[in-house]
Amino acid sequence: MPRGFEDRAPADIAAVERMIATIKGVYERYGFDPIETPLFEYTEALGKFLPDTDRPNEGVFSLQDDDEQWMSLRYDLTAPLARYFAQHYDKLPKPFRSYRAGYVFRNEKPGPGRFRQFMQFDADTVGAPGPEADAEMCMMMADTMDALGLAGKYVVKVNNRRVFDGLRELLEVEDDTRWLIIMRAIDKLDRLGVEGVAALLGDGRKDESGDFTHGANLPPAHIDRILNLTGWGGPTSGARGASNGITIDNMRRGNEGNATLMSACADLDAMVLQFEAAGYPQDRVRIDPSVVRGLEYYTGPVFEIELTFVVPNEKGQPVVFGSVGGGGRYDGLVSRFRNEPTPATGFSIGVSRLANALKMTGLLGADQNTGPVVVLVLDRDADSIAHYQQIVSELRVNKIRAEMYLGSSGMNAQMKYADRRNAAAAVIVGSNERAAGEVTIKDLAAGAEQAKSIKDNAEYKAAKVGQWTAKRADLVAELSKIAAIARMRSAG
Amino acid sequence: MPRGFEDRAPADIAAVERMIATIKGVYERYGFDPIETPLFEYTEALGKFLPDTDRPNEGVFSLQDDDEQWMSLRYDLTAPLARYFAQHYDKLPKPFRSYRAGYVFRNEKPGPGRFRQFMQFDADTVGAPGPEADAEMCMMMADTMDALGLAGKYVVKVNNRRVFDGLRELLEVEDDTRWLIIMRAIDKLDRLGVEGVAALLGDGRKDESGDFTHGANLPPAHIDRILNLTGWGGPTSGARGASNGITIDNMRRGNEGNATLMSACADLDAMVLQFEAAGYPQDRVRIDPSVVRGLEYYTGPVFEIELTFVVPNEKGQPVVFGSVGGGGRYDGLVSRFRNEPTPATGFSIGVSRLANALKMTGLLGADQNTGPVVVLVLDRDADSIAHYQQIVSELRVNKIRAEMYLGSSGMNAQMKYADRRNAAAAVIVGSNERAAGEVTIKDLAAGAEQAKSIKDNAEYKAAKVGQWTAKRADLVAELSKIAAIARMRSAG
Repeated sequence: MPRGFEDRAPADIAAVERMIATIKGVYERYGFDPIETPLFEYTEALGKFLPDTDRPNEGVFSLQDDDEQWMSLRYDLTAPLARYFAQHYDKLPKPFRSYRAGYVFRNEKPGPGRFRQFMQFDADTVGAPGPEADAEMCMMMADTMDALGLAGKYVVKVNNRRVFDGLRELLEVEDDTRWLIIMRAIDKLDRLGVEGVAALLGDGRKDESGDFTHGANLPPAHIDRILNLTGWGGPTSGARGASNGITIDNMRRGNEGNATLMSACADLDAMVLQFEAAGYPQDRVRIDPSVVRGLEYYTGPVFEIELTFVVPNEKGQPVVFGSVGGGGRYDGLVSRFRNEPTPATGFSIGVSRLANALKMTGLLGADQNTGPVVVLVLDRDADSIAHYQQIVSELRVNKIRAEMYLGSSGMNAQMKYADRRNAAAAVIVGSNERAAGEVTIKDLAAGAEQAKSIKDNAEYKAAKVGQWTAKRADLVAELSKIAAIARMRSAG
Repeated sequence: MPRGFEDRAPADIAAVERMIATIKGVYERYGFDPIETPLFEYTEALGKFLPDTDRPNEGVFSLQDDDEQWMSLRYDLTAPLARYFAQHYDKLPKPFRSYRAGYVFRNEKPGPGRFRQFMQFDADTVGAPGPEADAEMCMMMADTMDALGLAGKYVVKVNNRRVFDGLRELLEVEDDTRWLIIMRAIDKLDRLGVEGVAALLGDGRKDESGDFTHGANLPPAHIDRILNLTGWGGPTSGARGASNGITIDNMRRGNEGNATLMSACADLDAMVLQFEAAGYPQDRVRIDPSVVRGLEYYTGPVFEIELTFVVPNEKGQPVVFGSVGGGGRYDGLVSRFRNEPTPATGFSIGVSRLANALKMTGLLGADQNTGPVVVLVLDRDADSIAHYQQIVSELRVNKIRAEMYLGSSGMNAQMKYADRRNAAAAVIVGSNERAAGEVTIKDLAAGAEQAKSIKDNAEYKAAKVGQWTAKRADLVAELSKIAAIARMRSAG
């Protein structure tokens, strides 16, 4: 298997399916409907919006089609939505609410928890200009986390890109590359803290490995201004306040002269008013002026979901898991395909990433799916095999998961197989039993329980724990005496 | 969007999801559990088993990784299973039953109903040597079709590749290419009939377009032998009989001297005995000696699902849809990854293809998902917007799909939007209503019904059909008077 890809086992698949069904339920309740796009798009249609990539098409899997055109595997679900909206414009209700779940691909260096194929689950509204559409996204993200059993364990952090546009005007940074360095530095506040980011905004920073990263060479007053605005300037001067309203007031302070920043704050005010009216307190949805979001296409409000509990890694060490989803307003993306401005907002949940976090904390809830009833194969002549097939067929018709043992091993290996399948029962029919119209049933869970009190193997074999003989005609009724099988039948 | 790919709309997605859940239910009842592999594999791991491709890697999307190794998008779900089984060998129960659903990719010339990305749903048992494992596959295919509502509308056709191995020995065809021409000709019996195939087995055939295909140059006696064996030699001499048993007897006749063919027929006998014991009559599972299956890795029993009803194409013309699934025994495929023989059998359902067939015949059952309650936006000041958000939030908490209109259009466009969303109701709150603590509810289905008896627009507006005013506090209860909304709430 190529690096950066992974296989998935039954318990994981079932857990992620439950997650997806839960997320879908929330999105549908908000009026969103599913659409699906293919995994390939023309490379040109996807655009170049991946964060931290300097070469064009870096990070994307691309290949050339027969007609010489370049196609790429989608790296997110937003660019394909923009293409979809433009292509099917006439048939769609406007504003257009849609959700999409599926795999996306990044041609990056893989690492622990960092895959080249992973699943995202997005919701977007195209054609909605106002902050009420953004507010709705934030509330939907919070409701999704609650529905996944994460109430009290996350916060949706909200900011507005135009806050940074205003900041750039105030700091008079003309050069795009220099501005990108500043934005990337701010984005590292959570990870590096004030000191590290101040260094990146100033002369540069040497990391633990000794590598030196060049800084933005801002004067100290500018660095202070950034740290204050983003809420990292210390308890008195920082923007993060005791309430969302105070935080926005702090962001405004000293920046009143900048219209861009003021209008961004007004949008945040409007969103907070809606959060409060709809009952989303600040421990669920919080204004946080340090939120950047990497993707370059955002133009207004941005938001991300952060898990607030500590996640242990494979070695059991506590790690900050960071964001498991996020999004924002991207008013320029859809208009690439249309000749008119098309406002849009949306967000994406990293399903694989979130599932990983839940798994590491034991919140994923791997279900113990009851295995099938295993019909053992004692005689291998054609008539006996046909008889076993008849038995499993009858069980299946009666809503019991059932299989005939299909290998070539003997009795002991067959019993081990049944255990390994987590089978509720084994059905044993030898030639004598068949002639007498009987079957032997072995309740494997009960057998394992009773066997605990048995001392040696001879005693075990003699006791035939959890095992009884019944009439062939009563097989379904007899098996239904086992609780797990009765449950299976009533669930259908 | 690149050629050969397609977007999918909500109704299609919902229908395919229901299909997949149904198929899953059947596979699980047979004791199969899900696994999932990534979309990429090393090109070498996939092997070269696509039918009708002469160049290596033809038909596959491939690209070179950073480390120079070639990776390909999977073209089916069988080759990745073989890799999975070998890689996770120690942890898996043996025999290993698994099912897998997912997209596969073919880098082929697209055409009507022929896509380059499509969905398959496979089930396989690895490590099961006997025909009982193959028989189980056939019965599971039949049960799946029944569960999908297709009882009486399909037949599972069964043959054995070793029948053709025996035939090759009898005809003494040494040359592989010549043998491939013969097999491809037999595979066309359904489409071209006896005359066309006889031409392809003999001197060659000119098709309607005037293109000439070279033949296998077999002597007439050999051609007769093939047509007799495959059941196309006419009513008296052909192998297809009134029962599965007679068909196999016919296949044996005149070929008794060939051990390979005789042992293949014995396996078919064993399978038929099991079909009969388990209650699968020949109108569901039928021995058909003309079944070839294109993939080159099959080594024993092969089977395919054929729809027996006529499917109209886009122009309404009746077309034979052909196979919607198939499979067989591939004892050599897994052992490519292991140093010991590893028997395996399985099948694949072409989900996209089957969905298409069901759609064209109206059997897919597109559900009319009830749209969300749309809360219209009459006032756009911040307080009103917050009030609307409060309303939709309350409805969602009460299990009602609800959305606030997010566009910038006026009242009429908002009502049209609600219609287009198939909304059950619209909620209207202007400033007067808000001051009075009231809301106006419009039952859109009832309104449309009542409006039919109204003659002109003025009368319509005056009548305010399906519309009433209620206390704001009673909103949920009042909306629940609408049947579709009550259903939505009780479904949760």
